[in-house]
Amino acid sequence: MRYLITGCAGFIGSNLTDKLLQAGHEVIGYDNLSTGLIEFLKEAIQSPRFTFIHADVMDREAISKAMKGVDAVFHLAANANVRYGTQYPHKDLEQNTIATFHVLEAMRANQVRKIVFASTGSIYGEAAIIPTPENAPFPVQTSLYGASKLAAEGLIQAFCEGFGFQSYIFRFVSILGERYTHGHVFDFYKQLLSDPTKLHILGNGSQRKSYLYIQDCLDAILWAMENAQDKINIFNLGTNEYCEVNHSIGWICDHLNLSPEKTYAGGERGWIGDNPFIFLDCSRMRKLGWKPKLDIRESVIQTLRYLTSNPWVLDQRV
Amino acid sequence: MRYLITGCAGFIGSNLTDKLLQAGHEVIGYDNLSTGLIEFLKEAIQSPRFTFIHADVMDREAISKAMKGVDAVFHLAANANVRYGTQYPHKDLEQNTIATFHVLEAMRANQVRKIVFASTGSIYGEAAIIPTPENAPFPVQTSLYGASKLAAEGLIQAFCEGFGFQSYIFRFVSILGERYTHGHVFDFYKQLLSDPTKLHILGNGSQRKSYLYIQDCLDAILWAMENAQDKINIFNLGTNEYCEVNHSIGWICDHLNLSPEKTYAGGERGWIGDNPFIFLDCSRMRKLGWKPKLDIRESVIQTLRYLTSNPWVLDQRV
Repeated sequence: MRYLITGCAGFIGSNLTDKLLQAGHEVIGYDNLSTGLIEFLKEAIQSPRFTFIHADVMDREAISKAMKGVDAVFHLAANANVRYGTQYPHKDLEQNTIATFHVLEAMRANQVRKIVFASTGSIYGEAAIIPTPENAPFPVQTSLYGASKLAAEGLIQAFCEGFGFQSYIFRFVSILGERYTHGHVFDFYKQLLSDPTKLHILGNGSQRKSYLYIQDCLDAILWAMENAQDKINIFNLGTNEYCEVNHSIGWICDHLNLSPEKTYAGGERGWIGDNPFIFLDCSRMRKLGWKPKLDIRESVIQTLRYLTSNPWVLDQRV
Repeated sequence: MRYLITGCAGFIGSNLTDKLLQAGHEVIGYDNLSTGLIEFLKEAIQSPRFTFIHADVMDREAISKAMKGVDAVFHLAANANVRYGTQYPHKDLEQNTIATFHVLEAMRANQVRKIVFASTGSIYGEAAIIPTPENAPFPVQTSLYGASKLAAEGLIQAFCEGFGFQSYIFRFVSILGERYTHGHVFDFYKQLLSDPTKLHILGNGSQRKSYLYIQDCLDAILWAMENAQDKINIFNLGTNEYCEVNHSIGWICDHLNLSPEKTYAGGERGWIGDNPFIFLDCSRMRKLGWKPKLDIRESVIQTLRYLTSNPWVLDQRV
């Protein structure tokens, strides 16, 4: 198959690129390298079945050109940082919502009709039901990131109805593992590297969050594409557990053999729009026959192993 | 109070403008007159408390300038025609989603923090629960119009969380009454005027739809603003009933004393993305103490009376 991956140089995109190439597919990788790292494509670039296009998803001509002869699109390019929504509100709208529209229009112009979309558990806002299933009560948005992803989901669904597209929409918890470049494990590890005696934590540390290992995430995506064939296929992706930020800190410190003095910014939320409790009901995906191989603790440690053996990642502005 | 109304020359906007002026308020009316009609502002323009700004909501400078000193914004400007989404997919995104973002940003720049938004029952897609309450299961979008309004709702909610805005989001059924300029009553009346012996109906006529009279709609909006004070206030607006398109045709023909020969395009849906059954649970709004004065049949007849005494409206390209 010939796949287009937007955001191919990102955390999830580059791992997916490698996986699809290993399975013998052809991959058109598309990335503007604004947060993606060309280093993540080091192996991919060796493959004759990989083509890299250095362009922005907002460039309608480039994305339409890239779409030629493609069987399905993995649309992963995004402003993936939920934390800075209120600082740059246009960024989420542009890079997550409008960019998705350009991808859909480029697909339509090129008769490409299958799209896989990286959505987020953040679209449930502060969910009324926890663990939160896909058909949870109509959510209220609490972050510009969540709102922009919700908008993108809506566009994709309307294209399915209006233009006969098929879609796979995955609402992820936070992903951990190889090539992970932002989030709490990254922040804490970086802090401890510069001063192993101190650790500053946003919020009160009691925020309850969910995580999934990158390889489990990719397995789920490919498994769903093989085993679910509705017009619109929506799946939560996560493990059957959550952890407190404080637990995660414990695992990190144990693994690194450190006992830093902890200070807390305080408050239930780490930042405006931070969700103090994310826990998704992933039984729909489990019923399809998938289950994750690593639990959250193992994912955190796997991430630390990656960061320890790839210190160059810590110096990237991502 | 000083109110800004986007889409002030539209069906709902012009009626609201008149109502707020009658109540003694100051109104800044904003409209690009792409579908709005300046004739609808004939009375408003007589008032020294009314200012008309002929500009597009996509014009960021103009909307920001219009926002100065405003107490609250009624954001009604929209591409309100759900039917042509697949012909012009960018139109809904631009005029409903991106335009709403510009309104929100203009508000933020001018410290205006209260917004009333005209959303739609279409965002429930083909709802799993009927009558559909505000906290219905997370919907799947079936039209570009619904998707674009959902996206706008999400943006508004995120601005409430991120920037301390207060919002009133109304999910309307179709509105009928004075200055109604598109929809099935308009289409049927126009057909019967040009040939009273024939009527062509999109779909099979069994589509079940809900309607609300414009004055009841405006009463509800103003009532909610006085009596609900959450950060985000979401209300369905409709009557406690629905009708089949065929019933509505019966009322129209009775009122006009006609017995046309009916032909049907066939199919459950009138067009791609048409929802064969819209019926909203409006008990949240009723619990607040509001109820509509006209039922659907009375609203249809009121609309016919308006069209009969304002034949010029039928010649407008709206």
